[in-house]
Amino acid sequence: MSHTVEILSVGTELLLGNIANTDAQMLSQGLSELGLNVFWHTVVGDNLQRAKEAVALAKKRADIIITTGGLGPTCDDLTKNVLAEAFGKKLVFDEPSAQRICAYFQRTGRVMTDNNLQQALLPEGCTILENDWGTAPGCAFQAEGVHVIMLPGPPSECRPMFLYRARPYLMSLSEGVIASHTIKLFGIGESTMEAQLRNQMNAMSNPTLAPYAKEGECELRVTAKAATDAEAQALLRPTVQQVTELFGDKVYGVDVPSLEHVVIHGCKEKGLTLGCAESCTGGLIAKRLTDVPGASSAFRGGIVSYTNEIKKQVLGVPDELLVQFGAVSSETAKAMAEGARKVLGCDIALSSTGVAGPSRDDRNNEVGTMFVAIATPEGTCVHALHLGARPMRERLRTQTASHAFDLARRYLSGLDYEN
Amino acid sequence: MSHTVEILSVGTELLLGNIANTDAQMLSQGLSELGLNVFWHTVVGDNLQRAKEAVALAKKRADIIITTGGLGPTCDDLTKNVLAEAFGKKLVFDEPSAQRICAYFQRTGRVMTDNNLQQALLPEGCTILENDWGTAPGCAFQAEGVHVIMLPGPPSECRPMFLYRARPYLMSLSEGVIASHTIKLFGIGESTMEAQLRNQMNAMSNPTLAPYAKEGECELRVTAKAATDAEAQALLRPTVQQVTELFGDKVYGVDVPSLEHVVIHGCKEKGLTLGCAESCTGGLIAKRLTDVPGASSAFRGGIVSYTNEIKKQVLGVPDELLVQFGAVSSETAKAMAEGARKVLGCDIALSSTGVAGPSRDDRNNEVGTMFVAIATPEGTCVHALHLGARPMRERLRTQTASHAFDLARRYLSGLDYEN
Repeated sequence: MSHTVEILSVGTELLLGNIANTDAQMLSQGLSELGLNVFWHTVVGDNLQRAKEAVALAKKRADIIITTGGLGPTCDDLTKNVLAEAFGKKLVFDEPSAQRICAYFQRTGRVMTDNNLQQALLPEGCTILENDWGTAPGCAFQAEGVHVIMLPGPPSECRPMFLYRARPYLMSLSEGVIASHTIKLFGIGESTMEAQLRNQMNAMSNPTLAPYAKEGECELRVTAKAATDAEAQALLRPTVQQVTELFGDKVYGVDVPSLEHVVIHGCKEKGLTLGCAESCTGGLIAKRLTDVPGASSAFRGGIVSYTNEIKKQVLGVPDELLVQFGAVSSETAKAMAEGARKVLGCDIALSSTGVAGPSRDDRNNEVGTMFVAIATPEGTCVHALHLGARPMRERLRTQTASHAFDLARRYLSGLDYEN
Repeated sequence: MSHTVEILSVGTELLLGNIANTDAQMLSQGLSELGLNVFWHTVVGDNLQRAKEAVALAKKRADIIITTGGLGPTCDDLTKNVLAEAFGKKLVFDEPSAQRICAYFQRTGRVMTDNNLQQALLPEGCTILENDWGTAPGCAFQAEGVHVIMLPGPPSECRPMFLYRARPYLMSLSEGVIASHTIKLFGIGESTMEAQLRNQMNAMSNPTLAPYAKEGECELRVTAKAATDAEAQALLRPTVQQVTELFGDKVYGVDVPSLEHVVIHGCKEKGLTLGCAESCTGGLIAKRLTDVPGASSAFRGGIVSYTNEIKKQVLGVPDELLVQFGAVSSETAKAMAEGARKVLGCDIALSSTGVAGPSRDDRNNEVGTMFVAIATPEGTCVHALHLGARPMRERLRTQTASHAFDLARRYLSGLDYEN
């Protein structure tokens, strides 16, 4: 039997537009991968009557109801109360959950108010989904032919609670196995990628190919369904290979989390150390590299030189060069990378300089004019980027950092990186 | 009479989680500002039966239905067909719309396929909402006491279509004005804040108080409804003042975007320059400061010292101090901040050192052990933080950076920052 899922989100902040319903997106992605059909997203506010009506409807039309939000003390645990009532269950006090909540407050050094213990009231006979990322436990139960799963609303809790708690519970409900691989690309636009793949994509049914674009990167998800994982993998293999060959060195990895992961792991493998000197990216290159767990085995450090004085005094960029070419120039990017390599004592150094906006710089360089460089034992290479003024500051900076990582990725993989 | 709104989004891509429902967020924000109550968000796929059921339900419970998506040729104009049928209307061919669609394809140099002309079929007697940002026109009509507004799905069309087409139509339906202020707090948990406010919150109806928590910060939105903006502001003023007094120096601003904005603007106002030295935050402090447009008027730069060598050689942290106390210590945090102040030539320097995980450091310090320091012309002050190991790496780093900003904010505002 094929399952139908309704995702029911409870939270007035969604109806006021304070936040987007990213929980529903994340859950939909995860559920689709499990082969479960999500047919409805519903959002109601922290309102008893409308929450009750939404639950009554979901109970009629879906056989899996997943709720997000409405579990904390600020909303009187609305979701738990309504779901328990709809399925004729009592809420009972769960001592281990209470202890976990107390321990959470002790660990984080915060004061626990009494209303927090409400969260230890859970539907009788439910499976408790322990929350290691916040205070409100989730729960799951089956009643009247419907599976109910309740997850906390904050995305930083909802995501791990789904991955590590709800997903294993749901895996058993899905027939067959869904497997997928994600091919990551840099340096190609989504529409170009799609145009090259369109006929192929439309002709395929198992596996399927789905393109996504984000923050100047593209990815292709290849998904197959089969009776066993081995069969699904056998279906996936030729498509992954074919797509990887089609896009060549634009593919920076399969099933890798990010460009910066590839860079850190490439350095580790080759025993090389890495550093950076940043102007327009203002710390973002270092921040993204240190987002990678275990970055310290390759990354040594960085200099954020937001003024010419720091470029000169800390990085040793020659004054005459700054006077002649300006801070936003190929020459300065080169001197920054070489300076960082020396000052930080690392094998490879990346640098960035450019105009992230909101306005042009003192030499009238356009917003979106960027230079990234890589200094290596073999020499230094600079790329000029013209990203255009339209993307916002945040996105310009992200794309510039990604271009710097791509230089490093190409150098580390022995690919052409000079053009 | 008070209006109730349902936002009905049609699109399988939402149910697959390919995109988040940012249209619903944008519309909810805009509708709340008009004083219209959004009570439901519903999402269904490109499926005739479920779209019909969703429309039938919305027609019963809401008196304004706003749809997004399902207007283009790829879905056979599902939304228009279903809504027209639900309200007993025929679709009629609109010649001016057809001409606009042809002109759009000419202008963008794309080839028009025949199915695009379907988009010129519109419910009889409707108000056509001309789409200057894409091909599918929107429309609005009133029937059986319900207002129906249909907007295209792509966010780049939906937003301007709402602002310039639907909003003027809706303005006439709204009585009065909604105004709100957001009070931002740091150093207090959501449940503590909420416990202090609960009685007050429950007793209030206009203005209302709504708490939100994110990334270790809290905010309170105060919202009032009145006939004019001046009257709404008069309702808001006493509550904003009362709440601000209640939470004292935990309030870092009203209607300000972030802690780092407050820090940059505080420095600017006082003519002080700012720098940083980062270990565990790995560039995040610099990155967040340079997220602020115009940061360069106060921020000079930063050093990311991910190794002891860089702490010694670039920041001048004494070797004996690192040997005696270790890199994760109050002493090192102090020396880093003082070193950064000197090396970067700035008035104020922030520093961070700690264990962001995934595992303990070489001295067996627990994940979540963090030190932040501020060096000023008057001296240096260090805070030890025990954030607990459970929040993930990203969140630990975010909270540590926020604590450093809060030190700076307190120093700049003349508040106690040493305890």
